Amino acid sequence: MKKLRQLGERELIRQLARLLPTRADVRAGIGHDVAVVACPARYDLLLKSDAVVEGRHFLPATTPRWIGHKALARVLSDIAAAGGEPLWALINLVAPRGETLARLRAVYRGLAALARRHQVAIVGGDTTEGLVLELHVFAVGRAPRGTALLRSGAKPGDVLFVTGALGGSLAGKHLRFVPRLAEGQWLRAGRWASAAIDLSDGLATDLGHLLEMSRVGAAIQTEKIPIAAAVFKGLHQGAAGTAKGRRTALRHALGDGEDFELLFAVPRRKAGALEKAWRHKFRTRLTAIGHLTAQSGTIAWRAAGRALHVKAAGFEHFR
Amino acid sequence: MKKLRQLGERELIRQLARLLPTRADVRAGIGHDVAVVACPARYDLLLKSDAVVEGRHFLPATTPRWIGHKALARVLSDIAAAGGEPLWALINLVAPRGETLARLRAVYRGLAALARRHQVAIVGGDTTEGLVLELHVFAVGRAPRGTALLRSGAKPGDVLFVTGALGGSLAGKHLRFVPRLAEGQWLRAGRWASAAIDLSDGLATDLGHLLEMSRVGAAIQTEKIPIAAAVFKGLHQGAAGTAKGRRTALRHALGDGEDFELLFAVPRRKAGALEKAWRHKFRTRLTAIGHLTAQSGTIAWRAAGRALHVKAAGFEHFR
Repeated sequence: MKKLRQLGERELIRQLARLLPTRADVRAGIGHDVAVVACPARYDLLLKSDAVVEGRHFLPATTPRWIGHKALARVLSDIAAAGGEPLWALINLVAPRGETLARLRAVYRGLAALARRHQVAIVGGDTTEGLVLELHVFAVGRAPRGTALLRSGAKPGDVLFVTGALGGSLAGKHLRFVPRLAEGQWLRAGRWASAAIDLSDGLATDLGHLLEMSRVGAAIQTEKIPIAAAVFKGLHQGAAGTAKGRRTALRHALGDGEDFELLFAVPRRKAGALEKAWRHKFRTRLTAIGHLTAQSGTIAWRAAGRALHVKAAGFEHFR
Repeated sequence: MKKLRQLGERELIRQLARLLPTRADVRAGIGHDVAVVACPARYDLLLKSDAVVEGRHFLPATTPRWIGHKALARVLSDIAAAGGEPLWALINLVAPRGETLARLRAVYRGLAALARRHQVAIVGGDTTEGLVLELHVFAVGRAPRGTALLRSGAKPGDVLFVTGALGGSLAGKHLRFVPRLAEGQWLRAGRWASAAIDLSDGLATDLGHLLEMSRVGAAIQTEKIPIAAAVFKGLHQGAAGTAKGRRTALRHALGDGEDFELLFAVPRRKAGALEKAWRHKFRTRLTAIGHLTAQSGTIAWRAAGRALHVKAAGFEHFR
């Protein structure tokens, strides 16, 4: 098992670079001071960076290729929420000198497989010695000028939809999720959505972000929120059917985080047509969970018509 | 002194975001899933990421604003070597929960001051808890289509120039250097240079990169290499005048790294005109240190006409 201290930085870069895909629009990639790529005319660029850190976003025992997959999938999920097409990415790697080449190659193979699936070129990055393994991914995508979906733009009356099912992602989905790129691009191209966000901190927190940026409020029918099977598997046996079990499950769906599903708003007059067109196009689950209100920043959580007190306790670093 | 564990991630982001400059071409910045920026027509994009890590690129006692300055200046130096104009940047921050808001604000003020000076908008990023302070900066620049300077493109016979003076940067320049953006843009716009690189790992190593990507060799007149005053200040008193002292100084100039000067090749027929035009335009020191040869990958180091053995031992992580 070759370790980085035997290999050195430059040989490590050579070994990893050959695993990574490129694209025809890359004029200069890894090996130059900067990557040079052709700027697409009549598009906006979408810029996003995110990180995965050992002990926070994955564990020492995590299967290496899922570490790489998650590192890239996180930023692709944000580009998906904007309805964008990812194009290029750079990776800053931090690793201890005792790290093995074999593990890093597996991490990069996982990342490269996802990059290939979405025609993303890895065009550069940096490697630095550090205390634990970290990958910082910077991605650039595009959307036709003026069409990118944002957290702002939603209006009172819009219907709120969520893809997939929420909660319990620690059981595995937080590593292996598929970024909703096709769904996001389709929503943008069809001008269905007025605003969108990807769910990384949990529905309760991320809904708050969308409301804040759109200056609206929301009324949510909690019994409609799709709860992942992993949540129920995690409950004590027999608890799933009880009222207390349902409340516990809901708390997971609202606060576990790392769902990487899309939450988006659709003008009410389009909502029915959207649901029909969606089911024709995708097998991905789609659920209307409520609507937006004029009570800016306020979320009215309701269970079968009765008010429910929900503490928004999504994940937050440093706390 | 407020610490991050009291503040939480979201309040930290609010506090830091308000220090950071934006630009008119930013359609959506911090607060959205992705930054949305207008793609400049008829340009290539230049993409670069780099990191500064406590204990590696700065120390716990380093003046905070120079940490921020260095973090951004490193990537601007690469964009400078390409002759590019920096536009937007994102920052991934890693910090321990015991970190103070005051220190981070000072770091970000240093970064913001440099960003303002070059009209760079900070449009996003990520914050994560970690063991030591790290800043990962991703920058996007532009150059008119097909004109970016690369490490490749130099030809045998080209004259090699270096800006400024080399070595001894640990005395302070590694933190406070000014990225050579004006010089790089001028070199590109005037079509003076056939290839360029910024000196981050030391002349001996970085020259090797330029030779490798251009598939040429070089003959260097070591007595012409401009050596920084900081190198001589670091030598034992009286050593500067001796042959041994000169060899020691040269070793620093070749291998210390983090000079962040530009090394570039100019076709011989343009070299005289370049020097004249440069002195008219810039006060930055410019020195011809040798020329390129057809002996691909080989560097002939010479001192006053005699061959000199130089071990290229530039900085390398993990070793």
